[in-house]
Amino acid sequence: MKLEMICTGEEVLSGQIIDTNAAWVANTLMEQGIEMQHRTTVGDRLDDLVDVFTARSHHADVIIVNGGLGPTTDDMSAEAMAKAKGEPLTLNEQWKRTLIDWYAASNRLMPESNLKQALLPESAIMVDNPVGTACGFRVKLNRAWFFFTPGVPFELKQMIHEQFLPFLNTEFGSSQPTKVFKLLTIGQGESALQDTLSALQLPSGIELGYRSSMPHIEVKVFARGKTAINQLEDVVSAIRLLLGHVVVADNVPTLASEIHQRLFQSGISLSMAESCTGGMLTSQLIDFPGSSSYLHHGLVTYSNESKVRVLGVSPQTLDDHGAVSIATVEEMASGAREMLDSDYALATSGIAGPDGGTDDKPVGTVAIALAVKDGGIHSQMVKLPLKKREIIRGLTAAVAYDMLRRALLGEAVIVDYPNIKRFAK
Amino acid sequence: MKLEMICTGEEVLSGQIIDTNAAWVANTLMEQGIEMQHRTTVGDRLDDLVDVFTARSHHADVIIVNGGLGPTTDDMSAEAMAKAKGEPLTLNEQWKRTLIDWYAASNRLMPESNLKQALLPESAIMVDNPVGTACGFRVKLNRAWFFFTPGVPFELKQMIHEQFLPFLNTEFGSSQPTKVFKLLTIGQGESALQDTLSALQLPSGIELGYRSSMPHIEVKVFARGKTAINQLEDVVSAIRLLLGHVVVADNVPTLASEIHQRLFQSGISLSMAESCTGGMLTSQLIDFPGSSSYLHHGLVTYSNESKVRVLGVSPQTLDDHGAVSIATVEEMASGAREMLDSDYALATSGIAGPDGGTDDKPVGTVAIALAVKDGGIHSQMVKLPLKKREIIRGLTAAVAYDMLRRALLGEAVIVDYPNIKRFAK
Repeated sequence: MKLEMICTGEEVLSGQIIDTNAAWVANTLMEQGIEMQHRTTVGDRLDDLVDVFTARSHHADVIIVNGGLGPTTDDMSAEAMAKAKGEPLTLNEQWKRTLIDWYAASNRLMPESNLKQALLPESAIMVDNPVGTACGFRVKLNRAWFFFTPGVPFELKQMIHEQFLPFLNTEFGSSQPTKVFKLLTIGQGESALQDTLSALQLPSGIELGYRSSMPHIEVKVFARGKTAINQLEDVVSAIRLLLGHVVVADNVPTLASEIHQRLFQSGISLSMAESCTGGMLTSQLIDFPGSSSYLHHGLVTYSNESKVRVLGVSPQTLDDHGAVSIATVEEMASGAREMLDSDYALATSGIAGPDGGTDDKPVGTVAIALAVKDGGIHSQMVKLPLKKREIIRGLTAAVAYDMLRRALLGEAVIVDYPNIKRFAK
Repeated sequence: MKLEMICTGEEVLSGQIIDTNAAWVANTLMEQGIEMQHRTTVGDRLDDLVDVFTARSHHADVIIVNGGLGPTTDDMSAEAMAKAKGEPLTLNEQWKRTLIDWYAASNRLMPESNLKQALLPESAIMVDNPVGTACGFRVKLNRAWFFFTPGVPFELKQMIHEQFLPFLNTEFGSSQPTKVFKLLTIGQGESALQDTLSALQLPSGIELGYRSSMPHIEVKVFARGKTAINQLEDVVSAIRLLLGHVVVADNVPTLASEIHQRLFQSGISLSMAESCTGGMLTSQLIDFPGSSSYLHHGLVTYSNESKVRVLGVSPQTLDDHGAVSIATVEEMASGAREMLDSDYALATSGIAGPDGGTDDKPVGTVAIALAVKDGGIHSQMVKLPLKKREIIRGLTAAVAYDMLRRALLGEAVIVDYPNIKRFAK
């Protein structure tokens, strides 16, 4: 079965909007074992749409069309498909009823312009949209089934899951069952990960994929078919043994998400003292609703004065060792932890660049400490293999979270990652 | 002149990578007055590439191809174009020399595999890439000039600016001079902005565009041709008068960038006391190198205990007024400011949701204060018209930055925005 996508909309074509819908659809289908083969992006010109629909209808079995289902004049996906098929638009009474009820539910009269959203090509089959005013529809042209979806991301997502995937299943026979296991890694490059894992003799039906989302690289293990799914667990175990500490979490998008899941409603409390990460450790957790239940505070002490006044770092320590040092981050972590007697506190201080590096402490030098209630303090100073400010900060936050994650699991807090050089204490 | 783009690469097609290159190219060209008409995304299959090159070569005058110029076997843009043209690949001696020198400069021998990057279709004209090992090239097939560019974003950007735009100029005659002025706005929706500005009788050659990047909407004023460019300033002034306080900055992408530019090397110092924004105010500034010169500290005091212990907020105030109140944010701002005697301090406290709202203070209720050295304190409590956690936090940060911006300019610190309801004090 050959599958394509057509993205419509002047904003997407002209780069006003970055097309995250296209990536989301391709990714979601891939996790079902279905490969996207081709994507076309066109603006809101009727003739362009008709041309693209006609041209691609000979190449694919299924084409997802995204966008152009709204009530305004530049929404013309339905009209273009009717023209491509050489048939009229007709009013879908069922969707008209839905729209009128939708507006009535909020005591409003439906604007006349919205009626346009119930006008579908004559041979189209309406597809329900329970969360918006744009219904989807599907229609066959030449070789291809065209499946029209709304541009609003959450409406699209619901329609793909609840309508499109079941349709594919019915129309093209139940595809093989598939399962994906995702291992989140830090501290090793994509090609090195590939090299290491190339030693594995993968059973048939099992494939590896990689997704780089700095500072993380995700290793995806796809299993297609029952036999492969039964072997998935063994393959994941083998990958773990080959990669070691580099694997930091399973089936979560980020380490912050892993930490949030472990701390939420755990009764464990956390504080942060950040310098080079500049609030990143704190704000990545605060992105999750409910983080207030465990996060006491995040103190971004950028200046030396602030480290002294807010965290109680000793001026002598700063003089003797500098702001980027094991001694300073240890005092930062202890200061932040003791203030509210938190169970844990993380502290970072480093040189994120582009300026401020020295021969002793070049750009990318970072000190990180974890203070543990009744458990002393763990700290390390590392040299990150990167020069870009935001990537240095992101990897620093990831290593800090990983120290906390390992402490929560009762494992050794400080370990080696292939790409990260640790300074001797 | 009809212009298209072809994006190549399995990672882009399958959604492993979101295609920011495509949006950047379209945006950059639009600011030169050149419209992108069509975009195709294909994977790394030779036949697909040959088919797409051949098919699109009849529809456009210029086609930018992005990606597939690397040294590995799945990089096959050059090979595909040679096949589409029915001509061999030949070794470009000049680029071979460049590659050898490139490696020699870092005392390395060029790996044999890199020689592939000097293999171009016989009729291709090499395009220099001073910042990477993948040269670009251009070649004519049927109606279209194909211009091949590297996938690495900063290499692509340099090649578009330094090679592609001059090529367009030479090949298609100097296009009209164009100029863009961008006004950053907050606190009014895109359709309301459009409605307001529809009152303007725009001179010929001047057009408006809108880019939504929450919490900001950017109004772009394009001027094409000398006459229009001469009128640009007047049009911008008229827009300012129509939109009022909604316009918060000129020709910068975000308010954080505007604040950074005003504070960097100004001698003015700033502190932050954040609750609902959770470090966002601080980290958006720390993204800019050099922010340490003015940013004393950013204290994310999420818990009440932390507000008391770190910032010196009185427990009585929290009891009497609650954490989300004018009284509390004023004490937060004063506490953060006084600690290091900063010139300014911003404080936020609000209900970002999804839980925690009450009848009196529903989700979206936010208190913001600005403490000024020797200048008292400005504060307001607002109800934001949004429900999504990250958007509430983003708009809160924008309003806070705007209070500081207005104070720096000596203007009234607190003003009304159409979309934001202010509570009576």
